Amino acid sequence: MQNEESLEPSINSSFCVLRSAFLVLVISFTGSAAAETIADQIIQRELAGSQAYDTLSYLTDNIGQRLSGSKGAAAAVKWTTDRFRSWGVPVTTEKVMVPHWVRGAEEARLVSHMDQKIVLTALGGSVATSMMGLTADVVEVNSFDELKALGAKAKGKIVFYNNPMDMDLVRAHRGFEAYGKAVAFRSSGPSRAAEYGAVAALIRSVGSASLRTTHTGALRYDPNQPKIPAAAMTAEDAMLVDRLLKKGERVRMHLLLTPRILPDVESANVIAELRGSEKPEEIVVIGGHLDSWDLGTGAIDDGSGVAMVMETMRLLKEMNLTPKRTIRCVLFMNEENGSNGGRAYFANHKNDKHVAAIESDSGVAAPTGFRTTLKGDALTALERRAEPLAAIGAAKFETTRETGADTSFLIEAGVPGFSFVPEPLHYFDYHHTPADTLDKVDPKELAQDSAAVAALTWILAN
Amino acid sequence: MQNEESLEPSINSSFCVLRSAFLVLVISFTGSAAAETIADQIIQRELAGSQAYDTLSYLTDNIGQRLSGSKGAAAAVKWTTDRFRSWGVPVTTEKVMVPHWVRGAEEARLVSHMDQKIVLTALGGSVATSMMGLTADVVEVNSFDELKALGAKAKGKIVFYNNPMDMDLVRAHRGFEAYGKAVAFRSSGPSRAAEYGAVAALIRSVGSASLRTTHTGALRYDPNQPKIPAAAMTAEDAMLVDRLLKKGERVRMHLLLTPRILPDVESANVIAELRGSEKPEEIVVIGGHLDSWDLGTGAIDDGSGVAMVMETMRLLKEMNLTPKRTIRCVLFMNEENGSNGGRAYFANHKNDKHVAAIESDSGVAAPTGFRTTLKGDALTALERRAEPLAAIGAAKFETTRETGADTSFLIEAGVPGFSFVPEPLHYFDYHHTPADTLDKVDPKELAQDSAAVAALTWILAN
Repeated sequence: MQNEESLEPSINSSFCVLRSAFLVLVISFTGSAAAETIADQIIQRELAGSQAYDTLSYLTDNIGQRLSGSKGAAAAVKWTTDRFRSWGVPVTTEKVMVPHWVRGAEEARLVSHMDQKIVLTALGGSVATSMMGLTADVVEVNSFDELKALGAKAKGKIVFYNNPMDMDLVRAHRGFEAYGKAVAFRSSGPSRAAEYGAVAALIRSVGSASLRTTHTGALRYDPNQPKIPAAAMTAEDAMLVDRLLKKGERVRMHLLLTPRILPDVESANVIAELRGSEKPEEIVVIGGHLDSWDLGTGAIDDGSGVAMVMETMRLLKEMNLTPKRTIRCVLFMNEENGSNGGRAYFANHKNDKHVAAIESDSGVAAPTGFRTTLKGDALTALERRAEPLAAIGAAKFETTRETGADTSFLIEAGVPGFSFVPEPLHYFDYHHTPADTLDKVDPKELAQDSAAVAALTWILAN
Repeated sequence: MQNEESLEPSINSSFCVLRSAFLVLVISFTGSAAAETIADQIIQRELAGSQAYDTLSYLTDNIGQRLSGSKGAAAAVKWTTDRFRSWGVPVTTEKVMVPHWVRGAEEARLVSHMDQKIVLTALGGSVATSMMGLTADVVEVNSFDELKALGAKAKGKIVFYNNPMDMDLVRAHRGFEAYGKAVAFRSSGPSRAAEYGAVAALIRSVGSASLRTTHTGALRYDPNQPKIPAAAMTAEDAMLVDRLLKKGERVRMHLLLTPRILPDVESANVIAELRGSEKPEEIVVIGGHLDSWDLGTGAIDDGSGVAMVMETMRLLKEMNLTPKRTIRCVLFMNEENGSNGGRAYFANHKNDKHVAAIESDSGVAAPTGFRTTLKGDALTALERRAEPLAAIGAAKFETTRETGADTSFLIEAGVPGFSFVPEPLHYFDYHHTPADTLDKVDPKELAQDSAAVAALTWILAN
């Protein structure tokens, strides 16, 4: 997930209208015991015979990284489509044009300090240096105010934003907040530095653990500024440069980045449906994103989310359960560096009658519950219906304004949103790093998570 | 440190003779309270005004990696020599010829599985593949017996030794044992595989933590076998290949390694001395190794050991303490890939009267005590003298046969040996990896460790 500050949807007026509609909907089925019983069965069946790990294993081990425009992303579209079909779940794809950014060489060394190697990785979307690289002094700032104070002194320099995640927040299980703060420098830092004449921008990798570990993610260039190359140093390298500068030494770096920005590529959202028996025109959307960053294999971001929502469809089909409303599973393309899949889905389906949207893009760990845009009586009514989720520790609902990037367009239009919340403590140890790989996933926890998503989906659809 | 099985010294007969001499020596100063009082003062002074972290900071941040033959190693020889001189401690250097192995490109991908990137690092001393790399099927074994059973089936293949560290041992604070077992495949695995016609050898990185983290270290080619390229995959990549093979899939890898073996280089041990006032011909050697692996900056292996023994000399000089016996501090070159420094020191000084040798090459963490070749009454007598070390938790002595690679030549010749032992739990999380950097060192613990080494040195020299 991106979790960039600017992606937080504003709450507009249509939201209130639709939320009222949903309130009626939720309250209308209070008192029916059948849904709860089936939710219990869904959970038990999933825990006993989950295939979610097999799905995730193929996506990550056999296909690997799935960055938008890559052959991995294309293979993932094809394989997931085939997979739904093999389960007997009707499926289609929806065209999405995506950027095609390809990582190249990424090398740096301190020419001022024995040519020490600096470990870094290009930010997604970065332009390249020249093929010979560039050499410049490094200046450090910790805020945009400090950058402004530096002013003309940034000209010709490499601007280094040294902003670690707030580990107190991480340890308080509020890693997403800590990430949101630190990542501002990744998104807009390069263009802000370019404004003052910097020749490149570096950030400190935004992660909660490091063994010289790089953490990539998208930058966003301001069209009014020159595009300068940008990369994330590991925490260790950031601390090294900081220590040398604090000793009063001149730090001069050679930097070579050769990513390529190729023409946009046609890709797709994958859309599978279980048609509702009573109100087929009313749709519960569940989704994760099929693309990943390219450093790891996207097991936690967001292979696991994809596995959970695919598993929901497989399980309901296997159990021969037909929901009253339509359940639509969307595997979004390009969440990581454009959100074009979420945008395309909204453009194509904004007139559909969406009654709820569940996004799973917060990793995989012991389930805790859901964040939701619902509150008040509507939430209370739902909590009563969702009691079966307590059996797997997933019955906690917390009101929020933001439930995920791909469904943000729906949420902004007033659709009640849900975001699945596994325990977040270690998410940012791996997210967007080369270490986001299958071994970080506990199959039992993935089954519990899938059970939680499947059960809530069933409850909302009935 | 290497801790390779074949480095364990055998106990020969001269050992017993010299140990008896030492026993007399230790018992002879039982009853003198002065040494203990000064040991207390040494500890207090070091804790109050340690400069060990400054020493380590320059070695790692300003000089960086110090692989034998590199410009970092040469800079380290010069800087440490100058540093002793600036403290007023007499210092000299001693010629050591060292290998000059230079890491090159190291790239691998699974051509059988979407060209997935495999993260690996060449083993120290490895020959290169051709400049185009090689492509071959991967076969996995978990022991030399399995390799033997594979026999001719290894011909033309990449042999992959999938041997993780025993994490139960690591958690039981016995990481060095776990390392010793797993590292056998790194040392002799490549030649054993070559014997069966393998074209390359891979091991699973020998470490106790991984965020897609490579762990290098020396291999040892059998002169009777063809030299084949060899590398360590990260734990994650090793697990990936293992999972794919266990699914019954054919795993085919493209491997490119371009290290270069250049002509040997003249380097040096750095030798500083505080001459004894009463028995200057009797020498207590203290040492660490100045070289490091090239992936990190060798902060824990063995910049910290070097910092501790240098600090001992600086501190005694600053306190105007003249020992009765000579204290000789040796910064050994080339421990990591040849032990030529330890060997050269022994060749040049085997006729000196060494009464004890303390090696510090087990990292930096809270001090626990020392391993020693002493036992019985000699050890009991020493333990009594070393009571001041209890103030910093460093008074535990444990009898062992092995106290370190550089002093192993002395120990084998019968000199009583000591090895400083910090808490080992996290040592192999960083050792030989890119993450062996200054930020892993707690300055307070380094001061405690330095105090422990300085205090024991003083006690043994008086």
